[in-house]
Amino acid sequence: MQLTTAALGVRSLRAAYRAGTLTPHEVVDLVADRIAGRGADAVWISRFTRTELHEQAAALLPGPLYGVPFAVKDNIDVAGLPTTAACPTFAYSPAADATAVRLLREAGALVVGKTNLDQFATGLNGTRSPYGAPESVFGGDLISGGSSSGSAVAVAAGQVAFSLGTDTAGSGRVPAALNGVVGLKPTRGLVSTSGVVPACRSLDCVSVFTRDLDDAADVLAVLAAPDPADPWSRPARASRGPGAGRLLLPTGLDFVGDTAMEAAFDAVARGVDAVGTTPVGPLCEAGDLLYAGPWVAERLAGLESFLVEHPDDVLPVTRAVLEQGRDHTAVDAFRARHRLQELRARTDRLWADADALLLPTVPTTFTRAQLAEQPVARNLVLGRYTQFANLLDLAAVAVPAGLTDDGRPHGVTLLGPAFSEDRLLSAARQSITREAA
Amino acid sequence: MQLTTAALGVRSLRAAYRAGTLTPHEVVDLVADRIAGRGADAVWISRFTRTELHEQAAALLPGPLYGVPFAVKDNIDVAGLPTTAACPTFAYSPAADATAVRLLREAGALVVGKTNLDQFATGLNGTRSPYGAPESVFGGDLISGGSSSGSAVAVAAGQVAFSLGTDTAGSGRVPAALNGVVGLKPTRGLVSTSGVVPACRSLDCVSVFTRDLDDAADVLAVLAAPDPADPWSRPARASRGPGAGRLLLPTGLDFVGDTAMEAAFDAVARGVDAVGTTPVGPLCEAGDLLYAGPWVAERLAGLESFLVEHPDDVLPVTRAVLEQGRDHTAVDAFRARHRLQELRARTDRLWADADALLLPTVPTTFTRAQLAEQPVARNLVLGRYTQFANLLDLAAVAVPAGLTDDGRPHGVTLLGPAFSEDRLLSAARQSITREAA
Repeated sequence: MQLTTAALGVRSLRAAYRAGTLTPHEVVDLVADRIAGRGADAVWISRFTRTELHEQAAALLPGPLYGVPFAVKDNIDVAGLPTTAACPTFAYSPAADATAVRLLREAGALVVGKTNLDQFATGLNGTRSPYGAPESVFGGDLISGGSSSGSAVAVAAGQVAFSLGTDTAGSGRVPAALNGVVGLKPTRGLVSTSGVVPACRSLDCVSVFTRDLDDAADVLAVLAAPDPADPWSRPARASRGPGAGRLLLPTGLDFVGDTAMEAAFDAVARGVDAVGTTPVGPLCEAGDLLYAGPWVAERLAGLESFLVEHPDDVLPVTRAVLEQGRDHTAVDAFRARHRLQELRARTDRLWADADALLLPTVPTTFTRAQLAEQPVARNLVLGRYTQFANLLDLAAVAVPAGLTDDGRPHGVTLLGPAFSEDRLLSAARQSITREAA
Repeated sequence: MQLTTAALGVRSLRAAYRAGTLTPHEVVDLVADRIAGRGADAVWISRFTRTELHEQAAALLPGPLYGVPFAVKDNIDVAGLPTTAACPTFAYSPAADATAVRLLREAGALVVGKTNLDQFATGLNGTRSPYGAPESVFGGDLISGGSSSGSAVAVAAGQVAFSLGTDTAGSGRVPAALNGVVGLKPTRGLVSTSGVVPACRSLDCVSVFTRDLDDAADVLAVLAAPDPADPWSRPARASRGPGAGRLLLPTGLDFVGDTAMEAAFDAVARGVDAVGTTPVGPLCEAGDLLYAGPWVAERLAGLESFLVEHPDDVLPVTRAVLEQGRDHTAVDAFRARHRLQELRARTDRLWADADALLLPTVPTTFTRAQLAEQPVARNLVLGRYTQFANLLDLAAVAVPAGLTDDGRPHGVTLLGPAFSEDRLLSAARQSITREAA
């Protein structure tokens, strides 16, 4: 059977397997061919060989993800492949799969390999890696976004049906927007982070890239499970179920002069049934605590000893970001926590009359050349509408929303309270279409 | 009518009002007489006059606490009286009642005055105040415990029917044990802390002292309400309701050589139906983060500017404790938060098969003279079995459990998960009696 790119999805594969028109071995060859076909695209850090993939295909477990090939960001453990976090000196060989990977394999999925990322998941742009900087599938030297750069591109390029990323400040959403795929960032604690290299341990989430919303729902259903091995794991609270899609629109957006992006977002916003508006200022204030405030010390908390022992093995830009963590006192950290609580309480009140908030996922795009000119400042721009979500205990889904008039990818994100994933996916199905802009 | 001390309780007053055998004005006179009768007991920092109390009595609102006189720890705002936090220079005149006080007044209760405390609620012993050190109602120069020293003694001495304290490290439980009254520390966020001088803002709870468990339940029913003015307020999660009283007993207790206290606790423990045991080590490790770890910086976060401007107006022992907050970095704070999360997850698993954990409230007692000899070290001893509760997001109720063989007060505490107040009170009614030891 000939598979189109669109057919390499979770539901389409399930349908093909049920119909008997496809076998996992055929899918393995397709995946291996497609990866080879793209050549040195900087998407992968390590992979199982074609032979190893066929061995996996011969021993698949039955389950809802039977025979579905997926990629794993290389800060998440996969037994049999090294975990590098995009830092070769840091690499180790995990004895076991991360819980998330184990659950996917137990559901029948087939792990293809490990994908590139901004080193230590610190960055939102996809250029901070010794393994190269993937280009967006939209070309034109556009950055892939990060930090889950390879995972987003692997799905967008049709190399795998879905992939795992991580998301602390937007790493699971920014590259979704820049490659035209869905990026689901579940509620903190809903998906286990056991076996994941910590960035900010209290904020880190495992995220999912898929080609569409239904696939994201199916993968999340497998991943969402309490894990005694993860102290940050939380049982899902009783969800209110799919809601009425009552959306809030933002006021005070800043597209840093990108009028085409602004026009694309306005077109989406005009098309939805909004119940009200809310200013983005308080959200951005929360987000600023992450890199401009004491939370950068949480990144350093996990990596300080490595940084001290191997200063030259960390990218200079990454090291500079991490070392800002030394500038904050514990008093600063508690004061910031207090301010965050006020902003959380304010945000919680948004959900009394609305199911979700609609935002642009990124305010603009950059080329790899532009990013290199201002690697820190332009990275911060990318995170403007993503980096508060985990601090404010929100769930989020980034959805492709067509193109700007000048042909660049445009994406929007729906954000809602903790454990509102079903509502967000439902609202996105109702409100956002790929052809919106 | 002649009232016995025992009759000045929430339920006994309600019964007397219903029966028509007592009026609020008679209760006001009784309260004023009793307070005057004890003379300079260092219990009160400020009070309404007898005339003002009669004015309140003439204008009481109907409600479940109609005509019930209560005291308020002097770090909680009461309109019409200054808030000092036991630091005269810090004092201010609040424009409005704290939310907790307002709710009590709206339920018909009558506020008598403001009680003494360890300055800035920093301490568990009741001797750190320029307004004097109350003696335990058990006499013998025994400390009252703190920081809610005056609130506990006022109830124990029958001056009021109940009182409000605060509890960050045990301030609502230690003085309950040392004065033979009930001390209920609700789940963080269940009772509003709006209008309370912060100690550790993320941990602070308003607590309740009463003569018995039923009274505590009645007062909590009035106080437990979400408050938009308090960013730390949380709606009560659906409680599992009164449980079967399945208790865990501790192993590895250390009574610092107080064999009489150990024997008293053992007698209580032998009398309960235990379903298992758990070591206290991990609980104590969490507790040590509070004063020996970075959380002391959270205390400083709220008071640093006052301390800088008025160093000589703060007690030397209090200043020394607070200034330890400067010794910690933000990296320390996040590392401690990570360790705490592991200890929280471990503690959460205790409740799979048990409703509550039984512990001694304090390992031993001290006289005021003994406390003065080692004001910091002996304070830490007092908090050994209380100070982890708020960090681990537990609810707790301290219950009097008779006397040691040498006539000192003995108290035990039942601890359970967040929002388990009903279960704890129910388990305490079943398992612990004042005559237990």
